[in-house]
Amino acid sequence: MTTIHPVILCGGSGTRLWPLSRKARPKPFLPLVGEGTLFEQALRRVAPGEGFAAPMVVAGAAHAGLILDQLGEMPGARLVVEPCARNTAPAIALAAALLPPDAVMLVCPSDHHIADPQAFRAAAQAAAELALQDYLVSFGIAPDRPETGYGYIERGAPLAGGFAIARFVEKPDLARAQEYLASGRFSWNGGIFAFRAGHLLEELTAHRPDMARLVREAVAGGEAQGARFLPAHEPFAAIAGDSIDYAVMENTARAAMVPANMGWSDIGNWAALADALADGADAAGNLARGGQVDLDGCRGVFALTDGPRISAVGLEDVCVIVSGGEVLVTTRAGAQRVGKLPGASGQ
Amino acid sequence: MTTIHPVILCGGSGTRLWPLSRKARPKPFLPLVGEGTLFEQALRRVAPGEGFAAPMVVAGAAHAGLILDQLGEMPGARLVVEPCARNTAPAIALAAALLPPDAVMLVCPSDHHIADPQAFRAAAQAAAELALQDYLVSFGIAPDRPETGYGYIERGAPLAGGFAIARFVEKPDLARAQEYLASGRFSWNGGIFAFRAGHLLEELTAHRPDMARLVREAVAGGEAQGARFLPAHEPFAAIAGDSIDYAVMENTARAAMVPANMGWSDIGNWAALADALADGADAAGNLARGGQVDLDGCRGVFALTDGPRISAVGLEDVCVIVSGGEVLVTTRAGAQRVGKLPGASGQ
Repeated sequence: MTTIHPVILCGGSGTRLWPLSRKARPKPFLPLVGEGTLFEQALRRVAPGEGFAAPMVVAGAAHAGLILDQLGEMPGARLVVEPCARNTAPAIALAAALLPPDAVMLVCPSDHHIADPQAFRAAAQAAAELALQDYLVSFGIAPDRPETGYGYIERGAPLAGGFAIARFVEKPDLARAQEYLASGRFSWNGGIFAFRAGHLLEELTAHRPDMARLVREAVAGGEAQGARFLPAHEPFAAIAGDSIDYAVMENTARAAMVPANMGWSDIGNWAALADALADGADAAGNLARGGQVDLDGCRGVFALTDGPRISAVGLEDVCVIVSGGEVLVTTRAGAQRVGKLPGASGQ
Repeated sequence: MTTIHPVILCGGSGTRLWPLSRKARPKPFLPLVGEGTLFEQALRRVAPGEGFAAPMVVAGAAHAGLILDQLGEMPGARLVVEPCARNTAPAIALAAALLPPDAVMLVCPSDHHIADPQAFRAAAQAAAELALQDYLVSFGIAPDRPETGYGYIERGAPLAGGFAIARFVEKPDLARAQEYLASGRFSWNGGIFAFRAGHLLEELTAHRPDMARLVREAVAGGEAQGARFLPAHEPFAAIAGDSIDYAVMENTARAAMVPANMGWSDIGNWAALADALADGADAAGNLARGGQVDLDGCRGVFALTDGPRISAVGLEDVCVIVSGGEVLVTTRAGAQRVGKLPGASGQ
């Protein structure tokens, strides 16, 4: 069993599940599905002793205190504090530069839900084996709908435990998403990656030399304070931010994927959260959380309140969210647009 | 011009526009449409000097203070305080017993909206003429939809300024309501009545002798305190409550109606209020009141808040009401059922 170094990313601006998620308390730190917060679940999935080394968390300063509290009990756990938000590629490269070059790192978002952690861990081992053969490995999620908000991966030649990636496609239009779904050759890019730390830095140097150089400078000029590592601000701030997909995965000749059938959801909006909680719904598909909710003649309603009673009549496929003095009512179909509301973007 | 004695009824339990209307502040005392509260508008419509004597208001003790404040400026205005709620027939009979027998009284609910007060006053004069000929006159509203929540009046033989009433029909089913609408012979019973005070009491004595006797006892044993009249509690409480429609109008041989085309609405629920306010809606039929409301891709939404921001995405024909720490979301079609919600009935 290959030892895997978990790298947990805590980013995101907290607009997609507004008004529950806020900048001060974004999605990873909310108890949404299952036990504890999504961040706590992400930590539990890679608990040391099942092939995992102690985790490294990469997060902004705003949430450092909260994260350190939760890491306190885990010997060897570390927190890398991003000087500023520069998207996933620099965050991942920071972690890679702090790990031994031959360490296999597993990059995990902390704001996804995974219903089957055992399947996750099996996929992680398969990905680690490919990473040791110098593949940059992405977890592929079997699509169950023609989602236009995700990146897609087309499978190429089979490899041991996975497939080469023939190509990446970012957020296709609906017609293409339907085609991909029908073809059976495409997976969603789940945002979970495995690679050797040294290999990732080599590829970054090849495809984004400036970013790689500035990350190295930020690490060289950084400072360890107990479990925290504080990269140097100036070089990190000078990075042109980019996602790991654009910066590396779509450019490398060594991209691979492992299929991961693990009940994944990115809980990307209120409708997705309602889906992830669907087991708790009543016979009419209604779901209430957090306080008194009175429904009359409703179907497929998801109601969540932090106090005020919610009363609803005749609604179908609507989410009603009352949180922090804000009232949000959205159709399930409209849930993707919540982040663009004045309330969500102006918080 | 016949002098008309306005009798304004302030009853109702305040559930239909919950959570804005409450027992402590029911519909007549809310500013909903136009200037001031519905009660203030009801007073203004019958302002003394345009053929109207000073008004008499019949209301429960809970709202006596509020009403007296508003009556203070009107010489001769009186408030009859119902000892308890016994529906409209006893309330109207109290007023009748306190007026001279030959006074023409005009009974007006205080929780309706009338867009055209001039048409109202013209109909009142026509009704008064019929009342002087000992008709019990109901205002007939031309129906514009097959409403199943109202009483209907079928027109009979023409009279000067109105029609005899062939029959009353209470809350028909949809098929019959559609038939009535198509026939052109039916009007809604608007709950506005005119009769000679003495004649009303004679008819009540004929059809509800016990009620008439107990009302007389309540008045004989009552007490005037300034502008207030307090009927005796015991006989009034002993009355079997009933509506004026059931107790008198449906039994008399002298029922008449005057057509009143005056932009009437009983604002019977949130959808009716949205309709009454429709002039203020935007091009998509959305209407916001009271605070910040952000809508994205909504049509026919009525949003009203007493503070918290309302944000909505993708809704169609939905009312979102935030008031007094309660959140109500109802389809327009479901608005009639709001009064049955636990919040509305349990306040």
